[in-house]
Amino acid sequence: MNKNSSNIMALAPKASNKRETVCIFGTGDFGRALGHKLIQSGYPIVFGSRSTQLSSLIPKGAEVLSHAEAAQKAAIIIIAMQRQHYDFLTPLEEILRGKVLVDVSNNLKINQYPESNAKYLAQLVPSTRVVKAFNTVSAWALQSGTLDASRQVFVCGDDMEAKQMVMDIVRAVGLTPLDQGSLSAAQEIENYPLQLFPMWKFPIFLSLGLTAFFFFYCLIRDIIYPYVYENKDYSFFLAISIPNRICPVVALILLALVYLPGVLAAIIQLYRGTKYSRFPDWLDKWMLCRKQLGLIALAFAFLHVFYTLVIPIRYYVRWRNEDGIITQALNNKTNPFSNTYGWLSDSYLALGILGFFLFVLLGITSLPSVSNNVNWREFRFVQSKLGYLTLILCTAHTLVYGGNRFLSPSSYRWYLPDAYILSLIVPCIVLVVKFVLISPYLDRQLTRIRQGWERNPQYSE
Amino acid sequence: MNKNSSNIMALAPKASNKRETVCIFGTGDFGRALGHKLIQSGYPIVFGSRSTQLSSLIPKGAEVLSHAEAAQKAAIIIIAMQRQHYDFLTPLEEILRGKVLVDVSNNLKINQYPESNAKYLAQLVPSTRVVKAFNTVSAWALQSGTLDASRQVFVCGDDMEAKQMVMDIVRAVGLTPLDQGSLSAAQEIENYPLQLFPMWKFPIFLSLGLTAFFFFYCLIRDIIYPYVYENKDYSFFLAISIPNRICPVVALILLALVYLPGVLAAIIQLYRGTKYSRFPDWLDKWMLCRKQLGLIALAFAFLHVFYTLVIPIRYYVRWRNEDGIITQALNNKTNPFSNTYGWLSDSYLALGILGFFLFVLLGITSLPSVSNNVNWREFRFVQSKLGYLTLILCTAHTLVYGGNRFLSPSSYRWYLPDAYILSLIVPCIVLVVKFVLISPYLDRQLTRIRQGWERNPQYSE
Amino acid sequence: MNKNSSNIMALAPKASNKRETVCIFGTGDFGRALGHKLIQSGYPIVFGSRSTQLSSLIPKGAEVLSHAEAAQKAAIIIIAMQRQHYDFLTPLEEILRGKVLVDVSNNLKINQYPESNAKYLAQLVPSTRVVKAFNTVSAWALQSGTLDASRQVFVCGDDMEAKQMVMDIVRAVGLTPLDQGSLSAAQEIENYPLQLFPMWKFPIFLSLGLTAFFFFYCLIRDIIYPYVYENKDYSFFLAISIPNRICPVVALILLALVYLPGVLAAIIQLYRGTKYSRFPDWLDKWMLCRKQLGLIALAFAFLHVFYTLVIPIRYYVRWRNEDGIITQALNNKTNPFSNTYGWLSDSYLALGILGFFLFVLLGITSLPSVSNNVNWREFRFVQSKLGYLTLILCTAHTLVYGGNRFLSPSSYRWYLPDAYILSLIVPCIVLVVKFVLISPYLDRQLTRIRQGWERNPQYSE
Repeated sequence: MNKNSSNIMALAPKASNKRETVCIFGTGDFGRALGHKLIQSGYPIVFGSRSTQLSSLIPKGAEVLSHAEAAQKAAIIIIAMQRQHYDFLTPLEEILRGKVLVDVSNNLKINQYPESNAKYLAQLVPSTRVVKAFNTVSAWALQSGTLDASRQVFVCGDDMEAKQMVMDIVRAVGLTPLDQGSLSAAQEIENYPLQLFPMWKFPIFLSLGLTAFFFFYCLIRDIIYPYVYENKDYSFFLAISIPNRICPVVALILLALVYLPGVLAAIIQLYRGTKYSRFPDWLDKWMLCRKQLGLIALAFAFLHVFYTLVIPIRYYVRWRNEDGIITQALNNKTNPFSNTYGWLSDSYLALGILGFFLFVLLGITSLPSVSNNVNWREFRFVQSKLGYLTLILCTAHTLVYGGNRFLSPSSYRWYLPDAYILSLIVPCIVLVVKFVLISPYLDRQLTRIRQGWERNPQYSE
Repeated sequence: MNKNSSNIMALAPKASNKRETVCIFGTGDFGRALGHKLIQSGYPIVFGSRSTQLSSLIPKGAEVLSHAEAAQKAAIIIIAMQRQHYDFLTPLEEILRGKVLVDVSNNLKINQYPESNAKYLAQLVPSTRVVKAFNTVSAWALQSGTLDASRQVFVCGDDMEAKQMVMDIVRAVGLTPLDQGSLSAAQEIENYPLQLFPMWKFPIFLSLGLTAFFFFYCLIRDIIYPYVYENKDYSFFLAISIPNRICPVVALILLALVYLPGVLAAIIQLYRGTKYSRFPDWLDKWMLCRKQLGLIALAFAFLHVFYTLVIPIRYYVRWRNEDGIITQALNNKTNPFSNTYGWLSDSYLALGILGFFLFVLLGITSLPSVSNNVNWREFRFVQSKLGYLTLILCTAHTLVYGGNRFLSPSSYRWYLPDAYILSLIVPCIVLVVKFVLISPYLDRQLTRIRQGWERNPQYSE
Repeated sequence: MNKNSSNIMALAPKASNKRETVCIFGTGDFGRALGHKLIQSGYPIVFGSRSTQLSSLIPKGAEVLSHAEAAQKAAIIIIAMQRQHYDFLTPLEEILRGKVLVDVSNNLKINQYPESNAKYLAQLVPSTRVVKAFNTVSAWALQSGTLDASRQVFVCGDDMEAKQMVMDIVRAVGLTPLDQGSLSAAQEIENYPLQLFPMWKFPIFLSLGLTAFFFFYCLIRDIIYPYVYENKDYSFFLAISIPNRICPVVALILLALVYLPGVLAAIIQLYRGTKYSRFPDWLDKWMLCRKQLGLIALAFAFLHVFYTLVIPIRYYVRWRNEDGIITQALNNKTNPFSNTYGWLSDSYLALGILGFFLFVLLGITSLPSVSNNVNWREFRFVQSKLGYLTLILCTAHTLVYGGNRFLSPSSYRWYLPDAYILSLIVPCIVLVVKFVLISPYLDRQLTRIRQGWERNPQYSE
C-alpha cells in the first residue's frame, strides 16, 4: 500500500501504515455484510468457516479458511454466528489465546439467557478478550449503505485496549462507537435492539386511556343523549366532531401532566427542606418521560388544529349554515351582530393559535439536533418559561371557549358537564400551585434548597 | 505556553504540550482562511509563497517564507492551490521527502481529470505522504465561523499516521473528520462537493413527470372540456383547483411507490427461494431512494392540505355558496340533510387528517437526528408499520372521497375518468399484494428466507 | 475486572485494562453527580472533602478521604467547588504538583471576574496542569441521565496531554468533548452557559420593534379611524384581524432583510473591485444573524397562515357573510361572478401557499441535522436559489393581494396607506437590485472578484 514509508523519516516511532487483518467467523448474512464493508475500508479480511467452498457469496478480496487457520491470521476475530453455536470455539482456545473476540450477536427476546451472550463467550474461552459491538447494526443496513437509522455502535468490554481496537474498526466503517464500559454492560446492549420505544410506553398507554375515557364520555353526551331524547341520529359525529372534542381535551391534560411532576417535586423539596433525599420512584419515572408526554400532547394538538380547520368544509356544517341563513331570509329577519361574541370567538381562536405556535416551537426545540445546539440555560428557558406560557395560553383558550356557557344548566346532559370542563381541572391546579410557588417567599426558599441549603442538615461540610 | 511542564512528573512519557507548526503553500483565499483558523486553535503557521510581501492579508501571527524555507519548518504542508500549479513542487521533492502533504483542492466538474488531484499530487512527489482533506469546507465558512452546513471533513490517504495527524488538525478547528480509507477514495471525495442532491434526482424527475401528466390530464377534463361543451371559462382553476387535484394524486402515487419495491423484493425472494441472490439493479436503486420518494410525497401532501384548507376563503367558492343559498331562499325550499353525505364528507376528511398526521410523523422520524436516536427495530416499526398505515389511510381517504360517484357515467368526460381514480391503481395493487404476502403461509416462508433459509441451497454451512 | 489479562499475549506493549482513579474535590451536588456517573463508567473514584463523614449521599463505591490523601491517589483531580473556596488548594501545592486539575466551575454573571476561574486556578497552583471542562453540563442532567440538551463538553487547557486525559473521561461518561484550544478560551467557555440566545437578540428586538410599529399603525387605521369617522367599535379586531395584518407584513420585511446584506455585500465588492477588504462591522454581524432573521420570519409566516385559515370559523366573518347573503336574498338580486376576482383571489392564495411551502422547506434545511447532511453546493442552492424563490413568491403574493386596490384613494385613511404597501418596499428593492446584479455584465464582474480577481491589485502573487 505504501512502500515508500520505509525510507522516509517517520515523524512518530511506529508508522503503522497497513490496516491489520480482521478475521470473521461465520459466513452468514451479517458476517458477509460486515466483511464487505471492512474490505471497502481497507482491511484485509479472512473468513473462518466450516466449509471453505462458498466463494460466490463471499465479498471479493476476502479469503475463506478453516476456523483455526483464519484465527491465526488476525488479532481481532468477529464472531458472526448465533450463541447456540459458540461451543465450537472451545477446542480452538489455544489458537484464540489473547485475541480480541468481537461478539455481535443478538437474542430474540429481552433477557433470553441468564447472562449476556458476550459474557457467555468470555466464560467459554476465558483466555480471550471479549468485546461486545455491532449488534445494533443490521446486515441490511451495512450492505445497502443506507444507514438511515442510528449510526451509533455501542461497544463494551473489560479490556481497554481491545475495546480501542474495535472502536477503530467501527469508525473505519463510518459508524460512531460509543463506549459503554465494562462487559457487564453487554446485557443492556443486547437488549437495546429489541426494545420498542421503552420511554414511550407509559405516555402512550396513558393517552390511550384518556382517549378511551373521553370517547365514551362524548359518545354518551353527544350521540346517545340526543338519540334518546330528541331521536336524532348524530352517528356521523364519530368521524370528526367527537375526535375534535377528544383531541384538545387529551392534549391539554397531557400538557398539564408534563408540568405537574415539577410542581410536585418543588412541594416535596419545600416540605422536606432539602434536595438531597430521593424523590419517590413514580415521580422520578414520571419526570423522565415528560418529553414524551409533551410530544404526544403536541400530536393531539396537531390533530385538533386540523380537525378544527376543516370545519367549514364539512357537509354538515355547510348544510347547517345554509339552513340557518335560508330560515332567516324566509323569516325576513337577521340576527344582530354581538360585539361580545365577536370578542369571545376571535380571542379564543387567537389564544389557540398562539398556544399551538408555542407548542410547535417546544416540539422543534426537543429535536435532538436542536437541543444539542443550545446550552442548559437556553434549554431551560425554552422548556420551562415557554412551556408554562404554552400551558397558560392553552388553558385560557379552553376557558374562553367555554365563555359564558360554563354554568348554564343547558350544557349539562345527564348531569355530565361538557368534556372541556373536565379537561380544565389538572391545568388549573398546576397553574394555581405554580403561581403560589413563585410567590417571593416560597421562591426564595426553593432557590436556596436547590442551591444545596438544608433546613435540617444532617451532615456538615 | 506551559513552561512549568518541564519540572513536573509527567504522567505519560511524551508530554507534547505545543502544537506542531503547520505550513500552508499558497496565500489564496482558502489558504488564508485556514491559516487564520489554525492560528486561533493554537497552531504556529508558516505560509510558503512565491512572493513574501503580501503581509496585509496574511492572518496576524503567521510567517511568510519562500516555499522551500516554509516546508522545512513543518511536518505537515497544506497545498492550498489549484492542481494546475502543482508542478512547482517537483523541484522541492528533496525537502518534502517524508512530509505530509494535504491536498485540499477541488475541481470545477465531476471527474474532470482521469485521476484525482490527490493521486496526481502523490505521483508528482512520490516520497511524500499525501492526505486528502478539507475540500468540502469553503473558505467563506472557515472565515466567517458560521459553519451552518456540514462540519464533516472527509479525510483519506494511504498512510495511517499521516491521516491521523491531519484528522487532529481537523478536530482542532472544530470540524469532524471522517476517515474514508485509502487515497483511492479521493476521487469520490473530490466529486462530493460538486454533487447536487444525487439521491434526489430520480424522485424529483419522477414527480415532475407525474405532475406534468396529471396537469395536462386535468387541464383537458376540467378546463378545456367545459370550455368546449358548456362555453364556460374556468381558466382560474389553474391557480388552485387544478393543483389541488394534482397534489393529492401525485402524493398518493409516490407514497405507493415507496412501498412497491419492498413488495417486489418479497415476491422475488419468494420466487427464488433465497435471499442471497442480488436484486436487479433497478430495484436496488429504487430501494435506496425510497426515503426521498416519501419526502417528496409528503411535500405534495402538505400542499394538498393547504390548498384544501383555503377552499372556504376562495372568492369562487364563496360566490358559489352564496349563489346556491340565494337560489334556495328565492325558490323557498331547502335541501334536506342527508345522513349519508354527512358520513361520507366527515369520514373522508377524518381519514385525510389522520393520514396526513401519520405522514408528518414519518417525515419527522426520517430527520437524521431523530432516526439516530432510535434503534433498528423502532425505525422499522415506524417506517414499515406506520408507513403502511399511512398508505391505507390515504388510499381510504381517496376511496371515500370518490364515494358513490365512482361508476357514475357523468364523471367521465371524453371517456377520461377523474384523476383520483387513476391515482388509486398503484396503491391498491401494493395493498392487495401486501395483504396476500402477510397471509400466514407466505409470511412464514418469507420469514424463513429472510433468516437465511434457502429452498435450493447451493452451498452448505 | 479482567484477571485473565496477565497471562495473555498482549498485542501492544501496555495493556492498560483498568481505568485510572479519578479524584473529586468537593462533595456538593455536581461532584457527587459526576462521581456517580464516573463509577458507572468504571472509574475508581475518591472524594476529597473536609469532612469524611457524609457517606449517605456519596455514590456507592466511592471513597471519601481528606483532600491531601485523596489527591495522592489520582492523577486527575476534579475541583467541584466554587471559585471562592479555591485558596484552600495553595497549601496542597506540593501534593498537586504535575497533576491535572479540572476546573468545572461556573460564575453567576458574564465576565464576573477579570480572569477566568480556570486561569485563576492555574495561577493559584502553577505547578499543576489545569483543564477547563464539564461546566456546560448540569448536575441534574448528569444525575438523571436525561441529557436532553447538549451533550457537548467544551474542553480547553494549555497542556495537550492533560486535555486528552480529560477528554477521555468526557467520552467515557457518554458526552462529546470539543477541544477549544488553550486555557485562554476558558473565559468564553465559562460565559457560554450564562448566555441566552446571543445570536437571536438583534433579530428578536428588530422583529419586536417592527411588530410594535405596525401594531400602532394598524390600530390607528383599522380601529381608531372607523371609531372616529363611522363610530363603529371594531376593538375585537385586536384578537385576529390586526395580528393577521402585522404577521405577514413583518414576515415579508424580515425575509427581505435576510437577503439585503448579501446584495449590499455584492455592491460593496463591485465598488471596491476586490473581495479582500473587510466588510463594515454592522454588515458582518448582519450576515451572521441571517439564519435567525429567517427563522423568525418563518414564525410570523406560520402565525399568518393559521390566522388566515381560521377566518371562515370566526363569528364576525360568518355573521358578515350571512348578513350579505340575506340582504341579497331579500333584495332579490345576486352579485354576478367576476372572472377577474376569481383569478386574483385564487392566485394570491396559491402564491401564498407555495411561498409558505418553500419557507417551511428552508426552515427544515436549517435544522442542524439536515444541514449537516448536505454539502456546501447543496446548502447554497437551497438557501440562495430557493430562498430567492421564496422571497419572489411572497412578494408576488402581497402584490396580487393588493390587486387593483393599490392606488384606489379609498384605501388611504388619514393619508396612511395599507400596511401591506409599506411591507413591499424592502422586498421590492432587494429583488430589483438582485435582478440588476445578475445581469450578465455585473454577474461576470462579481464572479471574477469572488474568485480572487482584484481591479487594483496591491500585491502580486
